[in-house]
Amino acid sequence: MGRVTSRRRVIRLAGPDRTVRPDTLVAEEPLEIRVGGRPLTVTMRTPGQDFDLSAGFLVSEGVVRRADDVAAIRYCAGAGDDGANTFNVVDVVLSPSVPAPDPSLERNFYTTSSCGLCGKASLEAVRTTATWSVCDDPVLVDPAIVAELPDRLRRAQHVFARTGGLHAAGLFSADGRLQCLREDVGRHNAVDKVLGWALREQLLPLRGMLLLVSGRASFELVQKALMAGVPVLAAVSAPSSLAADLAADAGLTLIGFLRGSSMNVYSAPRRLIADPTPVGA
Amino acid sequence: MGRVTSRRRVIRLAGPDRTVRPDTLVAEEPLEIRVGGRPLTVTMRTPGQDFDLSAGFLVSEGVVRRADDVAAIRYCAGAGDDGANTFNVVDVVLSPSVPAPDPSLERNFYTTSSCGLCGKASLEAVRTTATWSVCDDPVLVDPAIVAELPDRLRRAQHVFARTGGLHAAGLFSADGRLQCLREDVGRHNAVDKVLGWALREQLLPLRGMLLLVSGRASFELVQKALMAGVPVLAAVSAPSSLAADLAADAGLTLIGFLRGSSMNVYSAPRRLIADPTPVGA
Repeated sequence: MGRVTSRRRVIRLAGPDRTVRPDTLVAEEPLEIRVGGRPLTVTMRTPGQDFDLSAGFLVSEGVVRRADDVAAIRYCAGAGDDGANTFNVVDVVLSPSVPAPDPSLERNFYTTSSCGLCGKASLEAVRTTATWSVCDDPVLVDPAIVAELPDRLRRAQHVFARTGGLHAAGLFSADGRLQCLREDVGRHNAVDKVLGWALREQLLPLRGMLLLVSGRASFELVQKALMAGVPVLAAVSAPSSLAADLAADAGLTLIGFLRGSSMNVYSAPRRLIADPTPVGA
Repeated sequence: MGRVTSRRRVIRLAGPDRTVRPDTLVAEEPLEIRVGGRPLTVTMRTPGQDFDLSAGFLVSEGVVRRADDVAAIRYCAGAGDDGANTFNVVDVVLSPSVPAPDPSLERNFYTTSSCGLCGKASLEAVRTTATWSVCDDPVLVDPAIVAELPDRLRRAQHVFARTGGLHAAGLFSADGRLQCLREDVGRHNAVDKVLGWALREQLLPLRGMLLLVSGRASFELVQKALMAGVPVLAAVSAPSSLAADLAADAGLTLIGFLRGSSMNVYSAPRRLIADPTPVGA
């Protein structure tokens, strides 16, 4: 579709020097996701893999869990000023057996019916919505392999190389092979695109797999990993307190500050193979 | 409130070494913003300056524009399991003259009534909602001063120094003095906290000021800058295409990749003083 990046004229200042040159920016456009013709959400995203994004959003929200929960996904024919299709509105048709989502669905993970809104209630909401459990996933990963994944992800990030401006999410097998990479201006969108790909490839739940994100690990990203049944989530940067709490609560292995050969493990360290030649303890 | 950071036990892997140590994480908790008792939105945020965040969210959405548009802001008394106040629900009481926001308000900036949803429609939505115009703001800024701002912001970021895990937004005068710094796990929240502070300090519109954000510049951040009447937005990292388009459309000076003495100017470069600061000045 040729809209993943966009060229702009830019003035580059470097100390006293000023030059005018073209710059490649990552594209950002709104996407409206409809379900059965009914508007559900709008997200600002990088165009591309919109069907994955739409399907993955519904996985994250617990609306669909199997490929055949989705009967069809299509772009809405254009009703723009010029009648053209903007390719910014997607309609997902669910199978007849799948209940339509609550229109207030976006808030379901966070809200309670009272002023008791708190982190504990947020954890409980995920617990009651999650389809799969990851706590019994017996996968073991070698820290030496985990340490290599950020480089593997970056090397595969073609759009980032051109724009320096977007997040990535990569799905890896336990032995470090990249299964799926998605990029987006929004980190949650990059993960949803991976989840939607996995749904459509009939790979859910993603047992034995590892999800790597390029930035921080928020509550929302841990929640998405759990909704897809991924047992290990690794982030290049820091997790939040609630992300660590949710991971510990669900038995998901959460790795943060994955840089060079070092990393922090915030929960379920049992999945990291101990070094064959331990020093001391 | 002591909830800005949170301690966790972490296993640190560095090559063959494994150590257990405490780690400081940035806190993340849900905040429900109500207006006149009616739930409007829930955001995952770092606790602290919740009244600024709530007021700033309403500035961003075009609901309030002056300090006296807000009659009162308070935490909802607890209705949690134990009856305690969770300090995660805020109620904003508007002045009688201010219309209550549409409950679908969060989507107003992005959606249109048809399948014509596109970047152009998003720009138009901001144009019709913005209270102030920034295009005639005559402020001039010295690139040498702009280049120093990321260091100034970072030095003032006390929470980041402890956690490495959150975004910052800083409001500066044209001569580089920091007026307000806010940190949050969410970049949009950090900016909303600055905007809410400015509203409550009766500083809107923020003519002649510069807003610096620690990460990328998205459409949403440019929109927030415009809703507060800030003429210059600088980001440490890349802008998106739609962010650059909106900035150009509104006459806002958008600076990206602000690193060391270099930066890219994507729109309205007229506000950057051409002659660099003479040596010895």
